[in-house]
Amino acid sequence: MIKSETICAIATAPGSAAIAMIRISGEKSFDIAASIFKPASSTFTFQSAKGNTIHFGTIVDGDVLIDEVLVSVFKAPHSYTAEDSIEITCHASSYIQHEIIKLLLKNGARMAEPGEYTMRAFMNGKMDLSQAEAVADVIASQSEAAHRLAFSQLRGGYAKTLQELRVKLLQFSSLIELELDFSEEDVEFADRSELLGLCHTIKNTMTRLVDSFSTGNAVKNGIPVAIVGEPNVGKSTLLNTLLQEERAIVSDIPGTTRDTIEDHLTIKGIRFRFIDTAGIRHTNDSIEQLGIKKTFEKIGEASVVLLLADVKEGVESLIKRIADVQQSAQTGTKICVLLNKIDTVESVDIHVLIGELCEKTRIEPSHVLPISAKKGTHIQELKDVLVDSIQFGVLSHADAVVTNARHQEALMHALESIVNVENGLQNGLPGDIVALEIRQVLFYLGSITGTITNDETLGYIFEHFCIGK
Amino acid sequence: MIKSETICAIATAPGSAAIAMIRISGEKSFDIAASIFKPASSTFTFQSAKGNTIHFGTIVDGDVLIDEVLVSVFKAPHSYTAEDSIEITCHASSYIQHEIIKLLLKNGARMAEPGEYTMRAFMNGKMDLSQAEAVADVIASQSEAAHRLAFSQLRGGYAKTLQELRVKLLQFSSLIELELDFSEEDVEFADRSELLGLCHTIKNTMTRLVDSFSTGNAVKNGIPVAIVGEPNVGKSTLLNTLLQEERAIVSDIPGTTRDTIEDHLTIKGIRFRFIDTAGIRHTNDSIEQLGIKKTFEKIGEASVVLLLADVKEGVESLIKRIADVQQSAQTGTKICVLLNKIDTVESVDIHVLIGELCEKTRIEPSHVLPISAKKGTHIQELKDVLVDSIQFGVLSHADAVVTNARHQEALMHALESIVNVENGLQNGLPGDIVALEIRQVLFYLGSITGTITNDETLGYIFEHFCIGK
Repeated sequence: MIKSETICAIATAPGSAAIAMIRISGEKSFDIAASIFKPASSTFTFQSAKGNTIHFGTIVDGDVLIDEVLVSVFKAPHSYTAEDSIEITCHASSYIQHEIIKLLLKNGARMAEPGEYTMRAFMNGKMDLSQAEAVADVIASQSEAAHRLAFSQLRGGYAKTLQELRVKLLQFSSLIELELDFSEEDVEFADRSELLGLCHTIKNTMTRLVDSFSTGNAVKNGIPVAIVGEPNVGKSTLLNTLLQEERAIVSDIPGTTRDTIEDHLTIKGIRFRFIDTAGIRHTNDSIEQLGIKKTFEKIGEASVVLLLADVKEGVESLIKRIADVQQSAQTGTKICVLLNKIDTVESVDIHVLIGELCEKTRIEPSHVLPISAKKGTHIQELKDVLVDSIQFGVLSHADAVVTNARHQEALMHALESIVNVENGLQNGLPGDIVALEIRQVLFYLGSITGTITNDETLGYIFEHFCIGK
Repeated sequence: MIKSETICAIATAPGSAAIAMIRISGEKSFDIAASIFKPASSTFTFQSAKGNTIHFGTIVDGDVLIDEVLVSVFKAPHSYTAEDSIEITCHASSYIQHEIIKLLLKNGARMAEPGEYTMRAFMNGKMDLSQAEAVADVIASQSEAAHRLAFSQLRGGYAKTLQELRVKLLQFSSLIELELDFSEEDVEFADRSELLGLCHTIKNTMTRLVDSFSTGNAVKNGIPVAIVGEPNVGKSTLLNTLLQEERAIVSDIPGTTRDTIEDHLTIKGIRFRFIDTAGIRHTNDSIEQLGIKKTFEKIGEASVVLLLADVKEGVESLIKRIADVQQSAQTGTKICVLLNKIDTVESVDIHVLIGELCEKTRIEPSHVLPISAKKGTHIQELKDVLVDSIQFGVLSHADAVVTNARHQEALMHALESIVNVENGLQNGLPGDIVALEIRQVLFYLGSITGTITNDETLGYIFEHFCIGK
């Protein structure tokens, strides 16, 4: 990507619509736009136009009129990329968009690479790297919770805190390296106890962040919910019942669709990803055993396991199955037993059954729900159990939740090194060894905000963007 | 639709993209926008902002930040609708778009009806009705030719001419109606020979327009091309060969797709709609006869018929089939005989065959093409034949081509009445009868530009628009 080139791209979604927008950014934006834009006002020029203003006119290819458009003028550095930029708002026919792009290419622009606008914004100091990464997450967010996390990162999030801690650590690092120059004189410029305190703060901050990742990642990609249940136990009826209610909420606003994929569900602003599994059964059949092994694996990956059973299933069989699930689930995974088809039995039986199950399996009584997927009985309670499965304490501090795997990796490396620094200081290790570990911490913290970076990392980050952003 | 209400809608296509735009229009646009927009500049207010300016800030729901956005301010009458208008450019996640629309509705806007922005533009005198109709056609245009016709209409097109003629006719009409008030005195305020001349001009203009409709309509919806050919004669190979070449032209520009439907093809900017037919065969089987009857019907609707045959088919059989097609085709339909699999025979045979066919069927030699669908032989010539099938004379005067069925109907009614006026004048019919027919002409011409209109017509026109336009 050559920075001096002027880039163009369609920034709105493809498809028939009222309007579409084409973005141009770079040194020659105004020259290129001037060669295809015929302003309605005879006195208009791009050079004389003020920034952040909108102008009516036509896009022309020589004598041929392509469209009536609005052109927005942004003057460097007051644009998204900090470069001279133009936005052309045209009628959203694919023909017109195609023709305008063709004209721009003919007049010296080139197609933007995925994420190149945001990359330029980062390169030109309009945002740090973690904010640039958040742009893609904001666009991809499909639920309120995921949006809140991504948007918080876009506004600075924990990167600010890390950057501040990094600057402090950098000062100590300089002092220690200065000591090394005077090593024969055995002086200490850097106050060791103060440094130890700083290390402690950094370690605590990073530990909290690292711990937040599993929740953050789950929220970003959808909380994994494994449904364990036999084929005829009412799985799809349950999903449909959940889906229908949520769909009804959003269906009154045209032009917006959410959750078109059948196995995703957004409940109270949190997105759940339902993982269908085969049932668990004790068998000697080797093929069936393989299927059951997979079920156990999926249970191990889930944040919530819904064990869906027919309420008429015997208590002994249920207890055995619950024990199997408990064995495969990770610590912290919430297990919920759903006794379906409650509408077909007497209520007295249920309470006895629930009491017995809870006693013998140590499942919380609130996590055994007699439901009717068909009639919607206790579906609200099920939703509450699902929503409560996320640590809301974490979510309410959205600016301290890690959702980005690259950040998580850097944080874990940095955490490892800061522990080494701490140990080194406590054990009185030589300054040069401590300095080396501090540099590691500085490197990993710097890589999150992009203070320290390389082309490969940048390439990796921006290739996952959409074109036009 | 109540004009005083403030409306909002997502104007860009749904789907994941860099940015999306939400439009607000109406008296309370600024108040509603102010209640959810927190400007970056502390001195900004919608009232003090100049029109056609862009402002950075955040969309907020109380204390909750929804997104960082750009807000464009348009002040009445300098906006698309001629009303105070706002455009919010946000990140294109469906979550964000949904939340902003929810907020706008909460703060007093309502969802726009399909086409309501354009309807308001018409109501407020920003465009006439034929221009408003053209907006939907411009958006729907899938080829250069269709775009050219729609865009010409958007820029005024024939409506201007009709409007001018209508005003002249209106003057005569007033004079003739004045005569009626003085009927006892037998005066003539309206110069009959001048009026006759005007009628003649109007008739000529309308006749040209009415005649242009079949071409205009074909260009708008795709030129209908019937392919007559047996299943194994190479029909799909031919379509694929045509398709591939054209696809290659556009595939270098990401973000734009054209012609996803397999039986549509855009060649040199003109869209063709291929109609597959069963072959023609003389048979006594009643079911097969039904299929053949359908083939004849489809040939009757086509602008071009491609008779695709194996070059090794006997000349007698070919001549019979050509005669069948000639019989079913309308006058003016171009018939083209494609002798496929030319790569499998000697070239000498071909010229003799073509000579014989042309002699015995009166098909033009240039319309008999020896081709190889597989190897792409003479595909370019076939394209030329297809493209030449449109009366380019008509297309080069895009501002005099009717593509709209409503206009065509009105023009045909008006034409009928203007002929009656002409006849009435030439036969010296009484003024009141002539006046009645003139009013009919005025009515139908006025309905095209919307000078005369009713709610039902408006409802019908705008319900076919997309929301947000």
